[in-house]
Amino acid sequence: MHRYPKAISDLVSRLQRLPGVGPKTALRFAFALLRWMPENREGLARALAALAGGTTRCAICQNIAEADPCGICRDPKRDAATICVVSEPQDLAAIESTNAFAGRYHVLGGVLSPIDGITPEMLKIAELEKRLQATNPYSVRELILAMDPSIEGEATMLFLQNRFHPLVPTITRLARGLPLGSDLEYADAITLADALSGRREMR
Amino acid sequence: MHRYPKAISDLVSRLQRLPGVGPKTALRFAFALLRWMPENREGLARALAALAGGTTRCAICQNIAEADPCGICRDPKRDAATICVVSEPQDLAAIESTNAFAGRYHVLGGVLSPIDGITPEMLKIAELEKRLQATNPYSVRELILAMDPSIEGEATMLFLQNRFHPLVPTITRLARGLPLGSDLEYADAITLADALSGRREMR
Repeated sequence: MHRYPKAISDLVSRLQRLPGVGPKTALRFAFALLRWMPENREGLARALAALAGGTTRCAICQNIAEADPCGICRDPKRDAATICVVSEPQDLAAIESTNAFAGRYHVLGGVLSPIDGITPEMLKIAELEKRLQATNPYSVRELILAMDPSIEGEATMLFLQNRFHPLVPTITRLARGLPLGSDLEYADAITLADALSGRREMR
Repeated sequence: MHRYPKAISDLVSRLQRLPGVGPKTALRFAFALLRWMPENREGLARALAALAGGTTRCAICQNIAEADPCGICRDPKRDAATICVVSEPQDLAAIESTNAFAGRYHVLGGVLSPIDGITPEMLKIAELEKRLQATNPYSVRELILAMDPSIEGEATMLFLQNRFHPLVPTITRLARGLPLGSDLEYADAITLADALSGRREMR
């Protein structure tokens, strides 16, 4: 086996820890980085070093943020009676980009997955429970469970519903149905059945 | 649009310069990096900073190496009369991993691509010419052109063949045909035609 210079194989072995990056992609990244201007490479190294210092976790919603509490939890215009539970900060960003939600969030940091060893204790579920208990009874009126419609996402939503239904009057989940621009003909049977059972009256 | 902490968006914009990495992948990398142990993140930053200092270009074959000249060019057991021309260091590594080649290499650093503005002057073609001229006439007996069988690769091989046929007795290219484990039924017409015209007598 051909040996790359140690500086390259070191970098490759580290880049391989990134999600979805195998040996070939890591090598491609390493050679691309080698062609970058030195100031860009140094800039990336600096951005990496500054990552942890420049971010914190909001003690309320558990989102990764610049300040604690985060901008959303500090914002008095956001409805504190509605909490949307998401698994990752990226999901929060996706919902924010719709401009269709004016409540608060709670970021779990993942979904339950016995296969990957992700148990309820490893997610920010206890923090959500404290949040629901700390307020006057029922001051949180609705919990929106916004996990991915995957096996793990569904299991997590079921778990949260079982655990929190005594604490919140309404627990909802995102609608399932045909996404915009999709072909009815190619929709899978479960999505189509969901779209049928969730049909809305046109007025 | 939801704003991520500046430390994250800085890192994301830098990661997006990696080949094949768009905004979503860069964000995924950034959140993964945030979950890494600090020492791993620092290790990656250090590996990045050490990249340029730990590598050099071999003045003979133009490969990225630890020393100049590189191990292959210094190795007296490697046949200097056969030069295999590749576009990237990764291609050299792929050929080395076969253990089927005992000659030397020349790394062009890319392929001709007028659309991307890659002209012959931007590749290490002049260096190859000097290498062929510097030796006694015809001391290099064979030039193996090992570019990808793509439009750009084919064009580069044609260009090199036109330019160097006065300097080298034999110029060859890699065989085209059916790869191991492939389905004849699903092979494209050009590959199948190549496999037919390149058929070998069984003895």
